[in-house]
Amino acid sequence: MLPFMRCARSGRSVIRAVAATAACVIALMPIMGGGAEDEASGVFGVRLPEGYRDWRLISVAHEAGGLDDLRAILGNDIAVRAFQEGTRPFPDGTVIARLAWRHQSSAANGAAFGQAQSFVAGPPTNVQFSVKDSRRYADTGGWGFGQFEGGKPNRDEALLRTCFPCHDRAAKATDRVFTHYAP
Amino acid sequence: MLPFMRCARSGRSVIRAVAATAACVIALMPIMGGGAEDEASGVFGVRLPEGYRDWRLISVAHEAGGLDDLRAILGNDIAVRAFQEGTRPFPDGTVIARLAWRHQSSAANGAAFGQAQSFVAGPPTNVQFSVKDSRRYADTGGWGFGQFEGGKPNRDEALLRTCFPCHDRAAKATDRVFTHYAP
Repeated sequence: MLPFMRCARSGRSVIRAVAATAACVIALMPIMGGGAEDEASGVFGVRLPEGYRDWRLISVAHEAGGLDDLRAILGNDIAVRAFQEGTRPFPDGTVIARLAWRHQSSAANGAAFGQAQSFVAGPPTNVQFSVKDSRRYADTGGWGFGQFEGGKPNRDEALLRTCFPCHDRAAKATDRVFTHYAP
Repeated sequence: MLPFMRCARSGRSVIRAVAATAACVIALMPIMGGGAEDEASGVFGVRLPEGYRDWRLISVAHEAGGLDDLRAILGNDIAVRAFQEGTRPFPDGTVIARLAWRHQSSAANGAAFGQAQSFVAGPPTNVQFSVKDSRRYADTGGWGFGQFEGGKPNRDEALLRTCFPCHDRAAKATDRVFTHYAP
């Protein structure tokens, strides 16, 4: 809050102070919503959306190879409605969450089934968000990207700068989104 | 509503009619909730819960082998709260939904990533439900089971009678539920 306080002191009259405060609030809005600046993931300033774990399911996925994870793709209400109604491009306010866990063989399930063929969600790896804001993220197709591990924002700028080039290879007809809604 | 109307006519006084109506309503409750009797899955009489696709996520899974599917396990509010708070046995009213789709390689994702390692939800296979009602399903640990394909109830009694023996091999400490809540 230090920048905000420094700004507010600059006005000499009450009116000027109010005007200055308002200007500062507007200028600081991108870093005020949802928490302090140090809670934002790098490059795009995306914050961990409150309650995202309880968002509705869009689809599931399994990424093999080096990642070897199981995934759930969840969405806020704007995202889910857009997926269900086929609205493209996605409207501003869309937030898509990709949760991932280790693709882990379940010994308990294998014992019950008589063979090892059951893979379940192991320890969580990271959570990624795609946030649609056509003005703020105009240079990246209207999408901002963030990543969190254990609730902590990832600030590896080189990593986060790989998000858009990869999504940019997805079909333009899907608004650069890989996931399709699972019925 | 024909049985209900026939019952209501049997009373000679208003009081008798009300009493008869109440008795009929109670007797008909198992087939009134959620639709007609022919909408229920076999053996346990489980019906497709309205809105289950928008329930919250409990976990994800990948069943390899012959099934070769990707799964999402969703729950109604009672189920999700019990999972989150660790309540066992699950309270009456718990409904757990297991959705499954073919474990399908995504050619589009493979083209974007430069290698085929991405599996997504293909066509849906079936949806199974575990319903907790300790009185109605007292003989099967308090659990009733149902299966639906394309929204239609499965009435293969031999198939549905395999549900409980398999769940009965899961740990009693988890109340015969295989799934754990994914953080």
